[in-house]
Amino acid sequence: MGKIEETRSRVGGLDAAAMEAARARQERLTKPPGSLGRLEEISILLAGMQGAPRPEVSAKAIFVMAGDHGVVAEGVSAYPQEVTPQMVANFLRGGAAINVLARQVGARVVVADLGVASDLEPHPALLVRKIGRGTRNFASGPAMTREEAIRSIEAGIEILEEERAKGLQMAGVGEMGIGNTTPSAAIAAAFTGLAAEAVTGRGTGVDDARFAAKVKAVARGLTVNRPDPKDAIDVLAKVGGFEIGGLAGVILAAAARRVPVVIDGFISAAAALVAAELEPRVKSFLIAGHLSVEPGHQAILERLGLRPLLDLKMRLGEGTGAALAMGVIEGAVKILNEMATFDEAGVSEAL
Amino acid sequence: MGKIEETRSRVGGLDAAAMEAARARQERLTKPPGSLGRLEEISILLAGMQGAPRPEVSAKAIFVMAGDHGVVAEGVSAYPQEVTPQMVANFLRGGAAINVLARQVGARVVVADLGVASDLEPHPALLVRKIGRGTRNFASGPAMTREEAIRSIEAGIEILEEERAKGLQMAGVGEMGIGNTTPSAAIAAAFTGLAAEAVTGRGTGVDDARFAAKVKAVARGLTVNRPDPKDAIDVLAKVGGFEIGGLAGVILAAAARRVPVVIDGFISAAAALVAAELEPRVKSFLIAGHLSVEPGHQAILERLGLRPLLDLKMRLGEGTGAALAMGVIEGAVKILNEMATFDEAGVSEAL
Repeated sequence: MGKIEETRSRVGGLDAAAMEAARARQERLTKPPGSLGRLEEISILLAGMQGAPRPEVSAKAIFVMAGDHGVVAEGVSAYPQEVTPQMVANFLRGGAAINVLARQVGARVVVADLGVASDLEPHPALLVRKIGRGTRNFASGPAMTREEAIRSIEAGIEILEEERAKGLQMAGVGEMGIGNTTPSAAIAAAFTGLAAEAVTGRGTGVDDARFAAKVKAVARGLTVNRPDPKDAIDVLAKVGGFEIGGLAGVILAAAARRVPVVIDGFISAAAALVAAELEPRVKSFLIAGHLSVEPGHQAILERLGLRPLLDLKMRLGEGTGAALAMGVIEGAVKILNEMATFDEAGVSEAL
Repeated sequence: MGKIEETRSRVGGLDAAAMEAARARQERLTKPPGSLGRLEEISILLAGMQGAPRPEVSAKAIFVMAGDHGVVAEGVSAYPQEVTPQMVANFLRGGAAINVLARQVGARVVVADLGVASDLEPHPALLVRKIGRGTRNFASGPAMTREEAIRSIEAGIEILEEERAKGLQMAGVGEMGIGNTTPSAAIAAAFTGLAAEAVTGRGTGVDDARFAAKVKAVARGLTVNRPDPKDAIDVLAKVGGFEIGGLAGVILAAAARRVPVVIDGFISAAAALVAAELEPRVKSFLIAGHLSVEPGHQAILERLGLRPLLDLKMRLGEGTGAALAMGVIEGAVKILNEMATFDEAGVSEAL
């Protein structure tokens, strides 16, 4: 656990002096104090995360990690497993929703295979960090070994570090993996203590029969494996997924580098929860991009102490909600950096 | 009333065939149907507004109209009236919040003086369409004459037409005018029948004493002037404002040209309400950019049948919420236009 421990030890807290400087500047900008609401809060938070009174977010990347899940054998998904590699190919060709929304906000898309069940066509932009060919079915035993869970997190740390070397001021996280709302529900239940019914949703469109199978699979995963909520790696190993571990590593490493992380939907939030349970100081570096329609998402955000920025009834994943939110966050940062102050503009203040 | 009547007569409805084509395409894009929630709805709505199966929103403008209000004599605002021209100058220099957010989404900012109390420094980008030097205090008589109300709407129609000639695929509306949440509350009360208390808020930061004065001014404006809710021009004349009339004209003319209009906060919504009461078909061309913290805003949106896209606790005006929302709307349109279909990408569909 060397790399994980080392990364954990580097996670700090928000920079209070930078936040105070950003807050003071917000008060001097030509608008009534507080009138830009959450935009002002976010700009101040970003200052604290980056440790800079004038944060910068022009260098952005969205980390989209893919993996497959043995639990699909329980009939939890409306889509066949072959869709995972097909969608990865779509990401690499630029035709998926995340490509469109990332282009709009000027974020690069980093695509990584952490554990797709089949071999993917090689592509210069595809990072292959396969920990396994899909997890095992957690309804009848652990999804992966503890060693595999650790390796998935380490792979995420390495990928974040490589991207950071190219310049990275804000990270978004997203994923692709047929069936991966099921491990996310199990992770949410394991850490929050909520029942399977309370955190399981319909994913990208399952009917009543599949929904019942999904709730049952989550409940069985918890009963059969008894993941220890005090041991985040145990939870990830027993009921998680390779791409979820990879994203947890990305998030942990981003926090250690003071890079703000924008979470997407339910699966990304489950990865953030794994990272935050591993190292609670990670929470200071998270922004919840949007509220998914998945019921477990709200439960995780509450545990992380996060309020989502957007609520657009989305449930796609891939990082799409994170990409949209990045546009709002960049607007908040530009407000802080580019607006005139009362003195500069010669505008009178309140009576 | 020639120009207004003529513009009204040109307002049509949503194009059902274009919407059906957009909806059919959304179903073929590489994502589970409906998984992009409101982004999908908006793209379909835009198709209906523009009458095009593949709408385009790259040419964008935000119309920021300024005016002063005699009702400030009642002590309703925390800011001196001189702030109105000072902020107009700030818009023209590019230092205000709306300039920053409009730049981010690639929208031009159209600044017009519809009735600032003082003379503004001439500027090549400033449209001077002064109907008066501030309205009269509506707490003791009509804010303007019926003729002035008509002229303010006509000025807005002309400004929209001029911008349309330069290319315009989506419009946003915003405003600046010290005290203008007070006429907006009176307009909301006049049309909805709600009490002054229910639609009056604290604007950009008034204390308890000013808030009480504001509620009283709104109530007196309604009692003294008895605006006729069946006659939108009468309401605008008696308790409105020049910039509100100008924006109502912009909105009416945009609807007539099938240009989608993104409403900002409370004052913009009051202008949209005037336009929609004048011509109900206008409603089909409106998108509510965000939910302001002003209590009257929700009341107006309900009457217009609109659900806001964003909720970021903003209360600045200027068009800032509209500009942010334009980014989300452009994302929705790009999803429709740029994503690959299942066939193109060779991705399997649901089982």
